[in-house]
Amino acid sequence: MEFREVVRRRRMVRNYDPDRQVPAEVRERILEHAIRAPSAGFSQGWGFLVLENLADRERFWRVATPQTELWQQWLVNMRHAPLIIVAHSNKAVYLDRYAQPDKGWTDRDERRWPVPYWDIDTGFASLLMLLTAVDEGLGACFFGIPAEQMSAYRAEFGVPEEFTPIGAISVGYRAPDHRSGSLKRGRRPVDEVVHRGQWSM
Amino acid sequence: MEFREVVRRRRMVRNYDPDRQVPAEVRERILEHAIRAPSAGFSQGWGFLVLENLADRERFWRVATPQTELWQQWLVNMRHAPLIIVAHSNKAVYLDRYAQPDKGWTDRDERRWPVPYWDIDTGFASLLMLLTAVDEGLGACFFGIPAEQMSAYRAEFGVPEEFTPIGAISVGYRAPDHRSGSLKRGRRPVDEVVHRGQWSM
Repeated sequence: MEFREVVRRRRMVRNYDPDRQVPAEVRERILEHAIRAPSAGFSQGWGFLVLENLADRERFWRVATPQTELWQQWLVNMRHAPLIIVAHSNKAVYLDRYAQPDKGWTDRDERRWPVPYWDIDTGFASLLMLLTAVDEGLGACFFGIPAEQMSAYRAEFGVPEEFTPIGAISVGYRAPDHRSGSLKRGRRPVDEVVHRGQWSM
Repeated sequence: MEFREVVRRRRMVRNYDPDRQVPAEVRERILEHAIRAPSAGFSQGWGFLVLENLADRERFWRVATPQTELWQQWLVNMRHAPLIIVAHSNKAVYLDRYAQPDKGWTDRDERRWPVPYWDIDTGFASLLMLLTAVDEGLGACFFGIPAEQMSAYRAEFGVPEEFTPIGAISVGYRAPDHRSGSLKRGRRPVDEVVHRGQWSM
């Protein structure tokens, strides 16, 4: 698909056809695109957990979502997704990378980092997966694992402490869904968020 | 261009043809794609500073880069870029958004946020700009403004305290450049970063 068309079509899809699996070659293309994301110092401090069979997916939903009505309501359709990919960042890899001689920092001091590029880079990988799903004619949704579910999630899947799940991506063939209520807020236009030459005097 | 081709061709470009401006319609398409990035709760807590004329760009390089030999060497080619877009995140917008009734949080407590989605979402917008440059036949580079340059940068351009520059994007027609030394590290293959069904027991 044309790049522009992929960008135009992308939106979070929250319901999937439960009877159609994601073909293996599509799943692998999604993962191959993820690792093409840029990363600071080519650190590539990321890790992905791929869940496909029903038992694994159900384990995920059980530990990663709170028992609130809002979440459980949302889950009714979301759990139709035949594929879940959880994207994790690894800060330690970045601190190590920038302590190497070619980067010139001689310590692992976190204060050198103005923003957490480990999370941003893993976000890049996540967006490439979302876009690839669209390019392949599927739908996907990116959502966070709530802070209070983190330790249960890590324990269930054996995710090491140094990896932080920045979000999960559900993937599948689209089924009718409700658009997010948040969209009623409207998209902020270019002129509202762009400053040219100077932000303010 | 086909989406797959855009993903395949994207890399950080660190030198530009100084005699070719970025056409206005290409610049606007880059910005229009930026605001199509997904954001938590459709918060869209971002802001972009667009610098084009020579004096503004020179002001940017002066305040945003350290006087070290490594940076100044890198600048020789980077300063040929006819367009710079600085992407900023705004945490306050997210804390406000999730304190609204439809989100159910009744406070602005930062501990609710497992990872900084304001930075990740602004990263999404940045990656869309990088990919759009490729789609338009141009090159781009994403780089951080070092922590020690932040206050000089903010003061020079009047960037409000609540906005944090997560990175700058230089854009222009490509000129021959050196590939980053970091690439010698090699790309980590899918099998090294992907865990299927279970991370570890």
